[in-house]
Amino acid sequence: MRVLTPVPLTREAFATFGEVIDIEGARQIPINQGLTTRFHDLLTLDCDAEGGHPVVSVFRTDPLHLPHTVSVMERHPLGSQAFIPMDAEPFLVLVAPAGDNVNAEDLLLFRTRGGQGVNFARGTWHHFQIVTGRRRDFIVLDRAGPGNNLEECTLTGEAIIPEEAASPH
Amino acid sequence: MRVLTPVPLTREAFATFGEVIDIEGARQIPINQGLTTRFHDLLTLDCDAEGGHPVVSVFRTDPLHLPHTVSVMERHPLGSQAFIPMDAEPFLVLVAPAGDNVNAEDLLLFRTRGGQGVNFARGTWHHFQIVTGRRRDFIVLDRAGPGNNLEECTLTGEAIIPEEAASPH
Repeated sequence: MRVLTPVPLTREAFATFGEVIDIEGARQIPINQGLTTRFHDLLTLDCDAEGGHPVVSVFRTDPLHLPHTVSVMERHPLGSQAFIPMDAEPFLVLVAPAGDNVNAEDLLLFRTRGGQGVNFARGTWHHFQIVTGRRRDFIVLDRAGPGNNLEECTLTGEAIIPEEAASPH
Repeated sequence: MRVLTPVPLTREAFATFGEVIDIEGARQIPINQGLTTRFHDLLTLDCDAEGGHPVVSVFRTDPLHLPHTVSVMERHPLGSQAFIPMDAEPFLVLVAPAGDNVNAEDLLLFRTRGGQGVNFARGTWHHFQIVTGRRRDFIVLDRAGPGNNLEECTLTGEAIIPEEAASPH
């Protein structure tokens, strides 16, 4: 049984899984007579495959009970999926490398710094959204359109997200 | 001199200017083993004209000093522009009907209910973002691409947003 320990989310560590959404490091454009800073173009929407288009939704998510045994991972073969928290608190992101199967040994658990979001690249294996502590809202940008955009995979091996993963230290 | 008084933002009152972004009234889809409600497809991105595409940015905006004399309105002839607040507080939205000119008598000032956003339809005359009270962050979905997507118009007549407009009552 593998016990997952979260590591800090960085652009480098997440590069093969998608994008970190973060105003830190973004291009800044002053507008509106200097009252507004535009942090420009924070992510890449990849939603046009097979006649798809991007949709904007809100995910309102209740906390996942921990410890949580990871059993199923999912991926979206036709489009990216971005999560932007509507608050400044961290959240957990569980991903796995590309491949036909997902092995417990290959799972990677990240914890965001408050304010960060993630944009899963098309086809990236990930766990459904993990929220701890309290109910939270996220803006989600993903794809709608024809075709099957959800694949699931039963984990090979065993892994758990322990209770301690919820706390930032 | 016209003194503008805000009226509540509703889908009906805003229909000719664009969309109200609101999870109230949205299609709700339970996902993630019942932990998440997906409030699905909250707005329509209209960003493809003349080779454009949608971009996701954050606007960090300082308060506008009130009273504010309205002098210039703007519109984006090539794409929609959506503002989603990253908090639950109201904000002000100033728009004007379609036409080559904007007259002070035709201005409409809305105040959102906390949690609402707006998506200006392509070509809708609007004031640049108005924030009162404190610095706030908004997720903005608009268009990038070739062509001129900003037109400005000097107001015909005179209008002010009074100090009282900042408070919800």
